[in-house]
Amino acid sequence: MTKNKVLLAFSGGLDTTFCVKYLMHELNMEVHSAIVNTGGFSPLELKSIEQKAHDLGVTSHVALEQTEDFYEDIIRYLIYGNILKNGTYPLSVSAERVHQATALAKYALEIGVDAIAHGSTGAGNDQVRFDLAFQLIAPQLKIITPIRDLKISRQDEIDYLKKFNVDLPWEKAKYSINKGIWGTSVGGVETLTSNQALPESAYPSQLKSETPSQLSITFTKGEVSGVNGEDLSPVEAILKIEEIASAYAIGRDIHVGDTIIGIKGRVGFEAAASITLIKAHQALEKHTLSKWQMHWKEQLSNWYGMFLHESMFFEPVMRNIETFLKDTQKNVTGTVFLQLHPYRFVIEGIESKYDLMNSEWGQYGEMNAGWSGEDVKGFTKILANPMLLHQKVNTSDD
Amino acid sequence: MTKNKVLLAFSGGLDTTFCVKYLMHELNMEVHSAIVNTGGFSPLELKSIEQKAHDLGVTSHVALEQTEDFYEDIIRYLIYGNILKNGTYPLSVSAERVHQATALAKYALEIGVDAIAHGSTGAGNDQVRFDLAFQLIAPQLKIITPIRDLKISRQDEIDYLKKFNVDLPWEKAKYSINKGIWGTSVGGVETLTSNQALPESAYPSQLKSETPSQLSITFTKGEVSGVNGEDLSPVEAILKIEEIASAYAIGRDIHVGDTIIGIKGRVGFEAAASITLIKAHQALEKHTLSKWQMHWKEQLSNWYGMFLHESMFFEPVMRNIETFLKDTQKNVTGTVFLQLHPYRFVIEGIESKYDLMNSEWGQYGEMNAGWSGEDVKGFTKILANPMLLHQKVNTSDD
Amino acid sequence: MTKNKVLLAFSGGLDTTFCVKYLMHELNMEVHSAIVNTGGFSPLELKSIEQKAHDLGVTSHVALEQTEDFYEDIIRYLIYGNILKNGTYPLSVSAERVHQATALAKYALEIGVDAIAHGSTGAGNDQVRFDLAFQLIAPQLKIITPIRDLKISRQDEIDYLKKFNVDLPWEKAKYSINKGIWGTSVGGVETLTSNQALPESAYPSQLKSETPSQLSITFTKGEVSGVNGEDLSPVEAILKIEEIASAYAIGRDIHVGDTIIGIKGRVGFEAAASITLIKAHQALEKHTLSKWQMHWKEQLSNWYGMFLHESMFFEPVMRNIETFLKDTQKNVTGTVFLQLHPYRFVIEGIESKYDLMNSEWGQYGEMNAGWSGEDVKGFTKILANPMLLHQKVNTSDD
Amino acid sequence: MTKNKVLLAFSGGLDTTFCVKYLMHELNMEVHSAIVNTGGFSPLELKSIEQKAHDLGVTSHVALEQTEDFYEDIIRYLIYGNILKNGTYPLSVSAERVHQATALAKYALEIGVDAIAHGSTGAGNDQVRFDLAFQLIAPQLKIITPIRDLKISRQDEIDYLKKFNVDLPWEKAKYSINKGIWGTSVGGVETLTSNQALPESAYPSQLKSETPSQLSITFTKGEVSGVNGEDLSPVEAILKIEEIASAYAIGRDIHVGDTIIGIKGRVGFEAAASITLIKAHQALEKHTLSKWQMHWKEQLSNWYGMFLHESMFFEPVMRNIETFLKDTQKNVTGTVFLQLHPYRFVIEGIESKYDLMNSEWGQYGEMNAGWSGEDVKGFTKILANPMLLHQKVNTSDD
Repeated sequence: MTKNKVLLAFSGGLDTTFCVKYLMHELNMEVHSAIVNTGGFSPLELKSIEQKAHDLGVTSHVALEQTEDFYEDIIRYLIYGNILKNGTYPLSVSAERVHQATALAKYALEIGVDAIAHGSTGAGNDQVRFDLAFQLIAPQLKIITPIRDLKISRQDEIDYLKKFNVDLPWEKAKYSINKGIWGTSVGGVETLTSNQALPESAYPSQLKSETPSQLSITFTKGEVSGVNGEDLSPVEAILKIEEIASAYAIGRDIHVGDTIIGIKGRVGFEAAASITLIKAHQALEKHTLSKWQMHWKEQLSNWYGMFLHESMFFEPVMRNIETFLKDTQKNVTGTVFLQLHPYRFVIEGIESKYDLMNSEWGQYGEMNAGWSGEDVKGFTKILANPMLLHQKVNTSDD
Repeated sequence: MTKNKVLLAFSGGLDTTFCVKYLMHELNMEVHSAIVNTGGFSPLELKSIEQKAHDLGVTSHVALEQTEDFYEDIIRYLIYGNILKNGTYPLSVSAERVHQATALAKYALEIGVDAIAHGSTGAGNDQVRFDLAFQLIAPQLKIITPIRDLKISRQDEIDYLKKFNVDLPWEKAKYSINKGIWGTSVGGVETLTSNQALPESAYPSQLKSETPSQLSITFTKGEVSGVNGEDLSPVEAILKIEEIASAYAIGRDIHVGDTIIGIKGRVGFEAAASITLIKAHQALEKHTLSKWQMHWKEQLSNWYGMFLHESMFFEPVMRNIETFLKDTQKNVTGTVFLQLHPYRFVIEGIESKYDLMNSEWGQYGEMNAGWSGEDVKGFTKILANPMLLHQKVNTSDD
Repeated sequence: MTKNKVLLAFSGGLDTTFCVKYLMHELNMEVHSAIVNTGGFSPLELKSIEQKAHDLGVTSHVALEQTEDFYEDIIRYLIYGNILKNGTYPLSVSAERVHQATALAKYALEIGVDAIAHGSTGAGNDQVRFDLAFQLIAPQLKIITPIRDLKISRQDEIDYLKKFNVDLPWEKAKYSINKGIWGTSVGGVETLTSNQALPESAYPSQLKSETPSQLSITFTKGEVSGVNGEDLSPVEAILKIEEIASAYAIGRDIHVGDTIIGIKGRVGFEAAASITLIKAHQALEKHTLSKWQMHWKEQLSNWYGMFLHESMFFEPVMRNIETFLKDTQKNVTGTVFLQLHPYRFVIEGIESKYDLMNSEWGQYGEMNAGWSGEDVKGFTKILANPMLLHQKVNTSDD
Repeated sequence: MTKNKVLLAFSGGLDTTFCVKYLMHELNMEVHSAIVNTGGFSPLELKSIEQKAHDLGVTSHVALEQTEDFYEDIIRYLIYGNILKNGTYPLSVSAERVHQATALAKYALEIGVDAIAHGSTGAGNDQVRFDLAFQLIAPQLKIITPIRDLKISRQDEIDYLKKFNVDLPWEKAKYSINKGIWGTSVGGVETLTSNQALPESAYPSQLKSETPSQLSITFTKGEVSGVNGEDLSPVEAILKIEEIASAYAIGRDIHVGDTIIGIKGRVGFEAAASITLIKAHQALEKHTLSKWQMHWKEQLSNWYGMFLHESMFFEPVMRNIETFLKDTQKNVTGTVFLQLHPYRFVIEGIESKYDLMNSEWGQYGEMNAGWSGEDVKGFTKILANPMLLHQKVNTSDD
């Protein structure tokens, strides 16, 4: 009898290592493993993970290189929309996870498996992101989640693996760290409290540059197209900015927010490139978009960010919002000047041929040719009308 | 024949000094002057302005002390709503101006004048704020705006004043500075460009503290009620925080946005107390409000800030929004811990009896008693339903 | 050993009749039953249900009279907010069900039971509404749902009941009908298709009046306070209007919308009083509220309706929205005149001391004293500013 | 010396007839006249207007045929968005006026005039719509508005015209009527009050059909593409539906709302085609769009309608909203079945290959294969989480 085939999302950590053996030996399946790289893994790390997979006896393993696709499908909308959840978090991990789940499900269809497995527990957001993407993209495949279903402890996993002579130094890291092109999350110890900040040492990056320096970022129709005068592809530019800004330990904060499963969660992050890019992009928009374009972008962007975070990436309205956001970017072309300091940066200004402030026609606070004080008097009179009417009917008894 | 009486908003600057003489001698009016203090003037400054008014020959002069009222009527809603226009500007001047105009109009009714005058030019936002408040609160009074109507130059003002032996050192300040309890705006030179930042020297405050220190802010039902463990009234607390945080040169930025008259404007500001307070308040809300409370607060607050900025404070919906915002603050009680550094601060955490994260019942990322992985599986299945249906009808040809 | 006590939501239908016996005999519980009247049951019907309960051997039965409470807690907000889901459905059943579940849970706590049971299947919205209200109000009680858990068929229920000599004429009605003070839903046959309308005969009411007649409805601060000149309490007024308008077969339509469980559903309804009242109330608001009050009311009301429909009545933001809605009603006082015709009505006009149109000061389309054509010219010039600026930067190449 | 050339928006009525003579004789200009047809004029009417223009001595006159363009540029977005201002008014006149002003300004640029004139008074919305479109599209042209500037009375206009032997029967119509493809507005007498309805005789159409009949409307990607099974272009379909539905006197109501100049206004309308089409389109969307697509469409559509009404058609966000709306229409393809009755119609149902309800997979209220009652239990538990947490922190003292 042929074995059923399963694709496992494999990271090389304890949980997914357990899953390999469990799927093979308890469920008697042919295990294929894959890891999706959205910019968080070096070639060396990917090589090491591949080696681990083969050592565990998987039938096949692959690293799906998805950084460019992740940019095209998601990141650029996060930039168009200046999306910072709860005012601070660039959705580093949430965005990445949804894209990874999608890539895995597509790959599962491609290689023709019977089931798809992930190592999420029953306690977090990721289980929802994986389940949902799998159900939508590969509804015919069974979803297997050993860790969630068995509610197994770390020690029991370690003991189980020892039976197969897998005896690695599984020390639990003090902080759980997830790295991707759009940022790195840091969870544990202090983030489990409400009143403590992460210590300097918890952040993977270190402050390397203490001398302030200039950074210029160029955007073309809302997409980053250059750094410090050098033309770059968006992904290249993000990596370049990350390199420069993370040396200043820029982009750190703690995100406090609502999880998909309805409880509050707290997680630290460092996201030098995404924070810098979003703030620069937003500065350019303040000069090139109308008040109402910014107003509606904010509404739709916040919603987009919330839905992406909550694994609702596949809601059809998300495609409509993406179309809207792209359409707003026609004039978002120009260069933004920043000054970098340790732990912070200053937006100094922008230059753009679409700068709505850069007009000879009228300058705020100065006399100008376009209109007169008389016009403003008339404007104000008409503006007052509805309020005057309201006041008139209320004078007697309100 | 008795002269007509006019109330003039008097600051002691060139424009309003010109207005005093112009109203007296050209319009033959009895001039009463007033200045509204919303926290920006010291007793000494107010005394000096009073002296100037009397020297110019006004019939009466008064300083209307309105800091507490300004807090009660406007600032607390700006805190409830975490209102930072375009993501950064606490509306320091705009909020203040609306309140000042209101206080002046009420005082004009009280002393029984025939007209009310202000020194705004025809180029900015303030003319709209003054005109509109005057029209609504004292519709029977004539509004007189000599500077706007005459389109007079500084030199012509100076020359005119000399005729009355008013010969003061009217040197134009490099930067136009407006100070109030909710922040100080700094305009001129660089803010008239799109690409230049204000130099350190343009900011009235100076960096005095370089050693990081702790700051704790306590809120009771959304209102600040203590600083570093000391019980204070809201106005006292704001002044205290300003003193502490401005020594770190915290709360500086440049606001770029749409003016009431429809063009883009750029203005620098420093607002140590308001920025610190708003960010602290928001951190507390992230722990004590539900996701949808924060969602709707954000919608209504942004609108409130926009309308306040644009002199629409008197729209009846503003009262409804204030009622809503107040109603959301029932659980926003607790203490927020910050660490202050030069030019920046870190929110370290919060403590609150209403902390929604501080529950034994469920902790994000940990196993818990409240629900199981099975429940989340069911949740995800139901969550997927509409997207699955959408996908089913689209598979054939989309 | 003492039996565990259970409170069962009992309607006298097949499903809940089955539940009585099942709870008694299979789960060995002491069964207490209750029915909540939110205006849908006559005293005779309630008597008959009580008789059935006793015949089945319940330990106690009660009819909880909740019509007034239902009005106070929910209906008045539906009127304040002019809430018609998807533009047509007054939420007749959804609103009622949430209130009923709440009343049952409170009663369960009052009489001290161990569990609470309802007869919902696993296919509809009501299970969520009941479960959720029970979990929130009486989290310590076990929830028992025999029909959902057993997935039992009607025939099996009938057969089971026969074993206990319960042999009633359980013919399945062609249409499932739910009646309450806020409307009657009608589901079945045609509503299960997408393309068929309900036949005249499916609606419980019948067209009785063919001659047009006048109806006037008076509101005081947003609450209905009189009909045709007679002072009435809100509940009395609703009943009166229902009596008058349902004779014209007014307020029928089919609601198509998203269910809580994510699929589309279609249900017919007749809701003479609620449709008439909401449209009348809205007409009065068009005359007494400002444009922006109506704008924000619409946003918050639609959300309120959606959340109520989806059993999210207990979200804390709902209390904040209620406070907002009430606050907007200060001037919504006056009388609305309608003409009733078979199947439709016409809003003829309104009278209100707060009518913003009823001003001598300015009349649309007529010359007036408040402002001049010159003022409008100035207004329009300033209004054009941002669009002119946008155009200027786009002329070269867009 | 050559005369300055002016383009006058000419309707043949008293005001614009006066303008011809005034521009010629008082301002000594060469007058070119134009009328824009957006579906409201028959060839005969246009011919008669042309004759009048030539009789008055204009240098040139043209009828700009813009019905198709009006559909392409505006109407289709009103259908995509189901736009009914204040829940009832299809923006018949407001939409038309903006398009007419645009067409006139473009024509003015084409023929090379020095000025552009319109006959609006200083009391209504149209002056803003004309001024604004002219300022934006032809900013170099002077805008001349004799009626507004002179504040002239009808009698003075008549007397003035007599001097040039223009002596026509200028009786003031009881109602001011504006007809276009998207509806006909009816203002006067009763609409100037708050409490009176328009009499039957005020409406231009008459009830001709008393026997109910069926109407089917087919949409393709949101655009109407057929009526009663016959393929038609959108404009043809609108005209066809108007013909059929206006015989039933369908689509009449009174719009009460805020004018651009800030006061409340009231106007009657009959708009058989637009009301029927919008309600049919919306019915199709209820079956083919997701809940959140409908939610966001409603937000953006309402805004679009408000801005269009208020002459803000040229705000750049309007283009972004149009792009969004179009993007939502991909699945809005199918046929809607209506039954027409005197003064009303019933939406019977729809058929669409994208019908989200037309699935074998799950049917509301019925058992189904896609998910189980267990899944809904899990769903409800997770849904309850945030509310449970809120309750827990509030139990002690709230």
